[in-house]
Amino acid sequence: MEGVSHEAASFAGHLRLGNLIYLYDDNHISIEGDTALTYSDDVPRRFQAYGWQAFAVDGHDRAAVAAALEQAVAQQERPTLICCRTHIGYGAPRKQDTAHAHGEPLGEEELNAAKQALGWPLEPRFRVPDEVRALFRRRAEELRAEYDAWQAGFRHWAERHPDLAARWREHMEARVPEDLFERLLAAAPREGDATRSLGSKVLQAAAAAVPALVGGSADLDPSTKTRIQSAPSVAPGRFEGRTFHFGVREHGMGAVLNGIALHGGFIPYGSTFLIFSDYMRPPVRLAALAEQQVIYVFTHDSVFLGEDGPTHQPVEQLSGLRAVPHLLVVRPADGPECAAAWTLALRRRRAPTALALTRQKLPALPRADGFDWSLMLRGGYVLAEASPRPRVVLVATGSEVALALEARERLGKGGVPARVVSMLAPQLFLEQDAAYRDAVLPPGVPRVAVEAGVPDYWYQVVGREGLVIGLQRFGASAPYTVIAEKLGFTPEAVAERVRAWLAGAR
Amino acid sequence: MEGVSHEAASFAGHLRLGNLIYLYDDNHISIEGDTALTYSDDVPRRFQAYGWQAFAVDGHDRAAVAAALEQAVAQQERPTLICCRTHIGYGAPRKQDTAHAHGEPLGEEELNAAKQALGWPLEPRFRVPDEVRALFRRRAEELRAEYDAWQAGFRHWAERHPDLAARWREHMEARVPEDLFERLLAAAPREGDATRSLGSKVLQAAAAAVPALVGGSADLDPSTKTRIQSAPSVAPGRFEGRTFHFGVREHGMGAVLNGIALHGGFIPYGSTFLIFSDYMRPPVRLAALAEQQVIYVFTHDSVFLGEDGPTHQPVEQLSGLRAVPHLLVVRPADGPECAAAWTLALRRRRAPTALALTRQKLPALPRADGFDWSLMLRGGYVLAEASPRPRVVLVATGSEVALALEARERLGKGGVPARVVSMLAPQLFLEQDAAYRDAVLPPGVPRVAVEAGVPDYWYQVVGREGLVIGLQRFGASAPYTVIAEKLGFTPEAVAERVRAWLAGAR
Repeated sequence: MEGVSHEAASFAGHLRLGNLIYLYDDNHISIEGDTALTYSDDVPRRFQAYGWQAFAVDGHDRAAVAAALEQAVAQQERPTLICCRTHIGYGAPRKQDTAHAHGEPLGEEELNAAKQALGWPLEPRFRVPDEVRALFRRRAEELRAEYDAWQAGFRHWAERHPDLAARWREHMEARVPEDLFERLLAAAPREGDATRSLGSKVLQAAAAAVPALVGGSADLDPSTKTRIQSAPSVAPGRFEGRTFHFGVREHGMGAVLNGIALHGGFIPYGSTFLIFSDYMRPPVRLAALAEQQVIYVFTHDSVFLGEDGPTHQPVEQLSGLRAVPHLLVVRPADGPECAAAWTLALRRRRAPTALALTRQKLPALPRADGFDWSLMLRGGYVLAEASPRPRVVLVATGSEVALALEARERLGKGGVPARVVSMLAPQLFLEQDAAYRDAVLPPGVPRVAVEAGVPDYWYQVVGREGLVIGLQRFGASAPYTVIAEKLGFTPEAVAERVRAWLAGAR
Repeated sequence: MEGVSHEAASFAGHLRLGNLIYLYDDNHISIEGDTALTYSDDVPRRFQAYGWQAFAVDGHDRAAVAAALEQAVAQQERPTLICCRTHIGYGAPRKQDTAHAHGEPLGEEELNAAKQALGWPLEPRFRVPDEVRALFRRRAEELRAEYDAWQAGFRHWAERHPDLAARWREHMEARVPEDLFERLLAAAPREGDATRSLGSKVLQAAAAAVPALVGGSADLDPSTKTRIQSAPSVAPGRFEGRTFHFGVREHGMGAVLNGIALHGGFIPYGSTFLIFSDYMRPPVRLAALAEQQVIYVFTHDSVFLGEDGPTHQPVEQLSGLRAVPHLLVVRPADGPECAAAWTLALRRRRAPTALALTRQKLPALPRADGFDWSLMLRGGYVLAEASPRPRVVLVATGSEVALALEARERLGKGGVPARVVSMLAPQLFLEQDAAYRDAVLPPGVPRVAVEAGVPDYWYQVVGREGLVIGLQRFGASAPYTVIAEKLGFTPEAVAERVRAWLAGAR
């Protein structure tokens, strides 16, 4: 019934995944009772509409299931659905075909009654008949021989084709070169642009450095700019490509990315607008829980996407994603920070990473001579120092970093020296040692966070008494400069709020 | 392609919604190009599998579309899908049938070329032919006459049936009685139990007090306990019921709730486990954005649901939902707080509310004689005072309130007087006037928040230097007492952490 079953099956049918077989345990029971209470689908017909082969069999008839499986294996052009009509709690005299058999243990009495009904001895409680044991032992031996033969064949092949074998191993280890950050930094544009465009250029370099990197977009590639340009697309019967066209299927995309990561041999990424991350929360969470390296590229990352309006403008999504354990959210502010973002994502071997990128153009950020680029990999760093010492620290991410720099100018002219910290990954910054954290955010100096999203997350950085310039409301449809004006995200407005706050509240 | 299209259409087919007609603008174009890039569904067949009537027509043939609509209106037993094959950017010589016509304006030149191709004058730029104007004017007159006749008939009916008319108005105004809180408080059990069970009893009283209240569960009613017991279920051809069986369709449920709210005449609620709120983030957000009164009952609201394990244990969901603008999250701790929670939800006429309820049993909370119950409606209040004055304030929600009370006992015996604040709705508490907030959380007294979820949200309450006893990890599968032990949610562990923190960090 779940929507993702539609997205996944439709995509599998489109790609003609002949190796895919579903066994549908069609027991007519869900938690509230008979599925007929809420469900009247003609399931085989529905899957045929997706281009699948579909059968219905008696799920308790092992020969019928085996025959259907043989037909499924023989069918190489379409996935197969085998609807197995079964009876939940089979044999249990009072609970068979009821919701009780779904959510509760049978209980001692009913269990014994079921065993009797099925002609099964009551003792020993866990009984494995000798013939079953023998059958499984034989099968294990057969499979061991198959496995050994495959491994021998692989070794033979690897000796004859050392180059291909090296590529195979590079994939299976999803290898990332030692000098990845240097390579991405060299490829990162230094001019100003939208971070989706800057990130796209870094992605091309990442794809060259990491052959295991594959991905695609949920029908937004022209906007998210995440196509690997050096390779073709994946299409029915053509799996040598590196770009997937996931369709308007965010939830399905997230699930496919998890499957690719769990299979191994690839580091998968998927892209959509940040607002549509709401459609794929469940698979994002599963990637984090299953400790899988999956990369999300979420563009159009704030109200500054402009005219599409509040339905498309993320406000709570950055805070919401940062709350997922093990999921790192990185919101870079310029080309070099995009290089840092992709480096962090590609080096996190056992956890997913989400990049948040802008639709709108951003100015290039100035950096002091001799700037230590590796500081970006610590999640937050001093971008612009105050002189002689900061009266306030402005902490900002992504598109608000340039804004904070401009506000700093104004504050400085007004006699309020301000430091600007670019905090592309606050979760990572908060994991740094206390000495580094104190060096970036000196204890005792008031802190202001500037991010065009709900402020919740930032109080752990700035303190309850700190100022968060955020948005506790939905956005609006207008050119982004008008939105910035109306919502107080201009250098004048930010500088004025900081001044008033320093003068008053404290 | 989106999964929710499956959930909604399957449910509509099951309920045989003969009044529902979809016109599918089948233009073969999505943002990445031809839909054939990623989509091979046989759409009419898919909808027939849902029990729909389905036609395919030339969408530019108005007579064919009109004929299909007539057949759709005549069909009272099934919803109808009319697949209208169209050409996007029809007539535009270079952009017709391309993705450019989806995401970009045509531009002056292409627009003029399209007008020429269609035999339409270039000037005036916005031209409404006289015959069109006349047609619409005539149609408006016809509809005005129909409307007036309906209103006259309604007045006539209302005069003849004053009782029914009163009920009609009660529904259409979704009236909530003045003394709702008193009625729910009277119905709320005072003994200890799971808040899902306590909430269920309050819901029965709410359903009696508010006839407009209707709802159901996404196939979890035996667990969420949200069935209105005094009325039958909604089923195909039987719409007089008050309980929907939404099936395993959380996203679809959220969308249906929005539809019911927008239609008017009802206050809809939907229930599932808190973890599955992740499946319905998009419609929850839309309810908030569209300012609709929709109520979500999210049970099994923490790792203390136990054996189902981390896939089912919410950790980041409370913080994530509190981040949605206009969505109020209420996490009651006992029967009276469940009455407050339902009162808050039913009184919020232009915004959605989410209730977070436990699976596990909780003890009854003691309250001082003469306790002012209305304080619960302020989102947070002093539940247990320290004597003589608090050295620390423990702020807790839901199942952690009783835990905080026990920790307070231990702290008190150890010479650390502690106040306990139950903060069922922190968003609402933070909106109270400063005098009330300071009375509950005295400035200068250290604060500790206790909630079995990610700590992010709580720093705005306790401060950066405050202590949040939360969970920055996924849960685990075990009986809930074992989980509490292992994750530090016992009175001893909480008291010890508070003591160590008061002694050390400050």
